[in-house]
Amino acid sequence: MESKSKVKVISLGGLGEIGKNITAIEYGNEIVVIDCGMAFPDEEMYGIDIVIPDITYLINNRDKVKGFFLTHGHEDHIGALPYILKQINVPLYGTKLTLGLVESKLQEHNILSDCELNVVKPGDIIKVDNMSVEFIRTNHSIADSCSLAISTPLGVIFHTGDFKVDYTPIDGEIINLERYSEIGKKGVLLLMADSTNAERIGYTMSEKTVGKKLENIFYGAKGRVIVATFASNIHRIQQIVDSSVKQGRKVAFSGRSMEKISQVALELGYLNIQEDVLIGIDDIYKYPNDKVTIVTTGSQGEPMSGLSRIAAGTHRKLRVESGDLFIISASPIPGNEKSISNVINELCRRGAEVIYSSLEDIHVSGHACQEELKLVHRLLKPKYFIPIHGEYRHLKQHAILAEKLGLSKSNIFILDIGETFEITSNKAHIANKVPSGRIMVDGLGVGDVGNIVLRDRKHLSQDGIITIVVTIDKQAATVISGPDIVSRGFIYMKESEDLLRDAKHIVRDSLDNCLSNKVFNWSVIKSSIRSDLGEFLYKKTRRKPLILPVIMEI
Amino acid sequence: MESKSKVKVISLGGLGEIGKNITAIEYGNEIVVIDCGMAFPDEEMYGIDIVIPDITYLINNRDKVKGFFLTHGHEDHIGALPYILKQINVPLYGTKLTLGLVESKLQEHNILSDCELNVVKPGDIIKVDNMSVEFIRTNHSIADSCSLAISTPLGVIFHTGDFKVDYTPIDGEIINLERYSEIGKKGVLLLMADSTNAERIGYTMSEKTVGKKLENIFYGAKGRVIVATFASNIHRIQQIVDSSVKQGRKVAFSGRSMEKISQVALELGYLNIQEDVLIGIDDIYKYPNDKVTIVTTGSQGEPMSGLSRIAAGTHRKLRVESGDLFIISASPIPGNEKSISNVINELCRRGAEVIYSSLEDIHVSGHACQEELKLVHRLLKPKYFIPIHGEYRHLKQHAILAEKLGLSKSNIFILDIGETFEITSNKAHIANKVPSGRIMVDGLGVGDVGNIVLRDRKHLSQDGIITIVVTIDKQAATVISGPDIVSRGFIYMKESEDLLRDAKHIVRDSLDNCLSNKVFNWSVIKSSIRSDLGEFLYKKTRRKPLILPVIMEI
Repeated sequence: MESKSKVKVISLGGLGEIGKNITAIEYGNEIVVIDCGMAFPDEEMYGIDIVIPDITYLINNRDKVKGFFLTHGHEDHIGALPYILKQINVPLYGTKLTLGLVESKLQEHNILSDCELNVVKPGDIIKVDNMSVEFIRTNHSIADSCSLAISTPLGVIFHTGDFKVDYTPIDGEIINLERYSEIGKKGVLLLMADSTNAERIGYTMSEKTVGKKLENIFYGAKGRVIVATFASNIHRIQQIVDSSVKQGRKVAFSGRSMEKISQVALELGYLNIQEDVLIGIDDIYKYPNDKVTIVTTGSQGEPMSGLSRIAAGTHRKLRVESGDLFIISASPIPGNEKSISNVINELCRRGAEVIYSSLEDIHVSGHACQEELKLVHRLLKPKYFIPIHGEYRHLKQHAILAEKLGLSKSNIFILDIGETFEITSNKAHIANKVPSGRIMVDGLGVGDVGNIVLRDRKHLSQDGIITIVVTIDKQAATVISGPDIVSRGFIYMKESEDLLRDAKHIVRDSLDNCLSNKVFNWSVIKSSIRSDLGEFLYKKTRRKPLILPVIMEI
Repeated sequence: MESKSKVKVISLGGLGEIGKNITAIEYGNEIVVIDCGMAFPDEEMYGIDIVIPDITYLINNRDKVKGFFLTHGHEDHIGALPYILKQINVPLYGTKLTLGLVESKLQEHNILSDCELNVVKPGDIIKVDNMSVEFIRTNHSIADSCSLAISTPLGVIFHTGDFKVDYTPIDGEIINLERYSEIGKKGVLLLMADSTNAERIGYTMSEKTVGKKLENIFYGAKGRVIVATFASNIHRIQQIVDSSVKQGRKVAFSGRSMEKISQVALELGYLNIQEDVLIGIDDIYKYPNDKVTIVTTGSQGEPMSGLSRIAAGTHRKLRVESGDLFIISASPIPGNEKSISNVINELCRRGAEVIYSSLEDIHVSGHACQEELKLVHRLLKPKYFIPIHGEYRHLKQHAILAEKLGLSKSNIFILDIGETFEITSNKAHIANKVPSGRIMVDGLGVGDVGNIVLRDRKHLSQDGIITIVVTIDKQAATVISGPDIVSRGFIYMKESEDLLRDAKHIVRDSLDNCLSNKVFNWSVIKSSIRSDLGEFLYKKTRRKPLILPVIMEI
């Protein structure tokens, strides 16, 4: 059988982009899928909430798909599951914390009872007919992260997941370099490795360095300490708690995702907080300010987050108080710089002290820098290499790094999403492209907002809209009401009466011209109005509002 | 006379924000104004082109205003002049390059012949009745930059302008620290100093270090070198030219502002290029690729710039060719990170080699870091200090720095734009607030887009618009045509026929309900439609499009 002699690797997301990581490994009649993440909309995606991968390929091969194997519990690796499982319901495999987070997500979407969740431990090997998937402990900015080694009849495909090398992790669970080494010794057919930090020289610092820094900063605090960080960074939160305990501070969580994730982590034993330390956000006023720490969301300046509300003075429960020390323990994700800066400015303006990454080293990345990547390449010694998880620039730097380590350029493949990478016993190549792309989620709609709607939203955001309404008696070929003009987002109508009066004349002339020439084709008339009015408005204002003529016929 | 015993300092822009720098110094019946800059719109200012300061205060004191004194030729210091001079036409003072750039700007706006431009040299003192303004050479990322020392009967106000300390500037014109020192010795009443880099420790590197780096990179280039940088950074451009000449490369300029500014700089002698080195962009194909350098705009990923067009493959004259080396010699201005990253990704994808600031040190800032700020504070020893040019976070860090240097906290003032800072012989305080703010320029309209229009543009960009049109016979109290529904940016109508049909029923019910209850007040009917339809759509889609009911009456 032809299909038995080859392995196909298809990433439906996560290449040439940050987020929505999902990769299918196919052998014969089996497909194992690694991760199922979401992405945030880019700035041209007006009004879109989140983006999920197009999994048409998996749906078309529904019977082959054996399950989703999850490397860790970040949104860009599990966030699309509630939407995707509605399309293709297959078993999930992941570590305890990862599935704990998935569980609360599926619960929210009311589909938990229909789903099969299989908890695995690092070291476990899941057998799938002719393939098998081994979970291997790695380090990352969320606990319980794994790399995956997928054994196929043609060899091992090693997928690092998101990772860094932390020799002193908070939970003591060090990346299993021994196992990396063993697998490398036996031979790796294909390495797929995290490229997020491929541009950065050196090493990513240990999470533990942040703890020491935080502790020092805490000692200088005279009032409350409010720390904003990623809700999923359990180890960071543990260190914030530990620093608080040393000063006799109580700890309260604020923000929906912070409350939810810390709850999951506490229940599953990933976060250790003594009962008398944890307090509800409503109870903070029972303690003196210098005995209170608040851990909150909003480290990326998200407009609806706890931190942004405090900064804007609109938080229901928290106001900036004299002596407050805010710590933003995160780096800006590209694109969020301005929102974070606004939050910092507003907090400073309200008199708070604010410590952020330009001032102190209060954050470390969760991703491997160049020296760590080199270590992993050297240990695994793959035959083929595909850089994954990153924009094109990151993939390219990672490819250059692999080449410098001695891998032949012809064995390194920078792929696009949807491209099929085929490996046979003696060669590998990029074959056909399968359907892939971005499905936009807007409110309850999944995929119902397309390019035309987005184009209109962009147009509307730039110059607004002018609606012209006219009622025509078709029999008599006369206008019997209108034209009326209403605009939104174009110009302040009350101050532009002259312009709008002139605009009405233009429309009226355009109409009369059509009707007197016996043009009764509505779309021709509309097009004439659009063009005459558009020209007039551009001349007068250098703006091009969307022009929407509506003809009512009686 | 009361007003003769005090000096007032009012910044109408440039405090708590990046850009639109403008400060008025007032004594008795005299006002001198420092700079007149524009700002770029923030992301909430949908469709706005640029932002200029509100100068109502100057217009209300028109007779007092003696002139604009310009520190340097960057847009955030001169860019509002074409708009402001139409409101208040007073003399301009600035160095040769600064006024050269202003001139070409005023020419574009067709107002040059009405304006008075006075070229000054560093060292010149302009007498203004009881005040005088001294131009003092400083260093910055544009040639011919000055600090200003404004002598008033109450003492000297020292305004650094934008500055850094460069001991090895390209033109050999070092910041005049001797003069700083002399003035400091005589006594400075008030220092206003650039805070842009107040968060950064150490020193800003000399512009010369970039030249060495560029030269090394040029030697590795096998084909064309395309460098994107700020058009106004004449010294950077000079170094790019010099590196090119060493390799026998011809140099072509691309991009409107690059062509315009290099032309001004060449004519005025700030840029030195031998005649046979400079070629037109159309002539580059007459030379082998490894003998060509192109200097272009677009280092911030601006969507319409030369570089973005090359990256997108839509440039009229330039395509990425094999062997091309792109150098983005600039750092991202906060907010531009994503656009720049997109440009880098696209260039890499087309096979170009791209060098940018995360990979190599090919840019230095034009602003002083903490050690340089300390130097200037120590030399000037001001009585009062106002940090300027920066977001609140930068102003605050600069205030902390001044305090660490020994200045009393009560003599340091972080101001808001529009706040009047009053100095009398023995004290200083913040007095009343004058009108100030952001005037938005959109196309030909200056200030005609206000908050309501912006709010609508934002709303439209998120969820689009639904227009409902109905023609009503008021006499008979019956609907005679419609309701018709048209939407833009909400949902793709062809794929949502069911939803729109249901929506029509809702509107029809809402209307019938009003009419049968004898409600003939159009605004009540519209409000009823908006509320019924809004509720229905939110339930079905979780979206809230702008709902625009139009009732035609016959």
